[in-house]
Amino acid sequence: MSEKRAIELIAFDADDTLWHSENLYAAAGERFTQLVAAYANPDAALAALHEREIGNLPLYGYGVKAFILSMIEAAIHLGRDRVTSDQVAALLTTGKDMLAAEVHLLDGVEEAVAALAAEFPLMVITKGDLGHQASKLERSGLAKHFQYVEIVTEKTDEVYERLFVKHGLDPARVLMVGNSLKSDIIPVLRLGGWGVFVPYRILWAHEHADLPPALADRFREIERLGALPALVRDISV
Amino acid sequence: MSEKRAIELIAFDADDTLWHSENLYAAAGERFTQLVAAYANPDAALAALHEREIGNLPLYGYGVKAFILSMIEAAIHLGRDRVTSDQVAALLTTGKDMLAAEVHLLDGVEEAVAALAAEFPLMVITKGDLGHQASKLERSGLAKHFQYVEIVTEKTDEVYERLFVKHGLDPARVLMVGNSLKSDIIPVLRLGGWGVFVPYRILWAHEHADLPPALADRFREIERLGALPALVRDISV
Repeated sequence: MSEKRAIELIAFDADDTLWHSENLYAAAGERFTQLVAAYANPDAALAALHEREIGNLPLYGYGVKAFILSMIEAAIHLGRDRVTSDQVAALLTTGKDMLAAEVHLLDGVEEAVAALAAEFPLMVITKGDLGHQASKLERSGLAKHFQYVEIVTEKTDEVYERLFVKHGLDPARVLMVGNSLKSDIIPVLRLGGWGVFVPYRILWAHEHADLPPALADRFREIERLGALPALVRDISV
Repeated sequence: MSEKRAIELIAFDADDTLWHSENLYAAAGERFTQLVAAYANPDAALAALHEREIGNLPLYGYGVKAFILSMIEAAIHLGRDRVTSDQVAALLTTGKDMLAAEVHLLDGVEEAVAALAAEFPLMVITKGDLGHQASKLERSGLAKHFQYVEIVTEKTDEVYERLFVKHGLDPARVLMVGNSLKSDIIPVLRLGGWGVFVPYRILWAHEHADLPPALADRFREIERLGALPALVRDISV
């Protein structure tokens, strides 16, 4: 890689950046509210589920398996001894359907990733179930474009810093693309890198954050990933 | 690293090699048989659980979260609509207890790992829940001795080969230590590396395998990890 390039590696979040994911959680949440409808109204049901998800993060981490376990726990919290084995079985099935769901790329991802892979080494940085994330990348057809795949437990400043050190990267020359300001963008901006925000139409409440104005310099926002190659060219000159 | 050394890196399995793990699964299995005692005798209960675990591997992968989900599924399979929400809640609690359980090192591990870390770069190669494995390594107090930590979805020849390439390792100079012939030893021997088998007193049936006689050359067996430094010295001269 030439010493002159402004960007020497492009890193991508995966869920809701490369492929649809939150829609599966939303559909499963909907199914959850139906299953517990006798015990709680939809808002209260989703609030209980969300509370369990956040409370279980330290033990369960991110990903679908954690979500299924939290759904079962929330259902029992809401319905107590009225929860039937059929309802629990339906939640297990809902979870398996999520894990087995086809991978649907977001619009323009295939072309943008292929174009950028011809010019830059690309990395995936994602959190979630190790096996599920690896399987989705494989099934997405995008694996061949990514030189590095990093599946992490959290996306904090420390985790990004460790990754950049591990790969010998100057943070100022890394560009990270993702749909979460909190997990994908702000930590990388804080380390001196570039952050390109591509909002997805639904965002898990836990991932909400505001951009600190002091970090706006290397922050960009695009509507679709298809706009990324042009943006990278702009930055690179 | 000197070109002359027979061994240039020592890799360790984690569960039941560095710290106790299978005892937690065994205790949880025991608890499971008690909870479903009205629907099946202990042997049938464990057989049903094992069948669910194996059947769910492609979707769930390894680790405690997968195990909890399989316990719930097996309980419902055995008890049908007689399974109560209290029983499901007890299985969730059993799983959380496993995740939160203190990390107990095996005898002699601390000293052996510290001694070897002074002479060799050490690597952990483990499968399971990403977050849970990382957390156990942290809580074990051993993290400081390991230069590399690789948490993988499967331990196949291909996975080891990819790791060796990634780290620029000559397989013939890698020594892998573990309690599973199938996952830790045989794949590494097949790639031309050294495999040191340290049996744990319980082995998950899924991990059973026999050593092919043709691979016996670089195979060693020790009773405890404490014997590893002396064995490595023997090999290295």
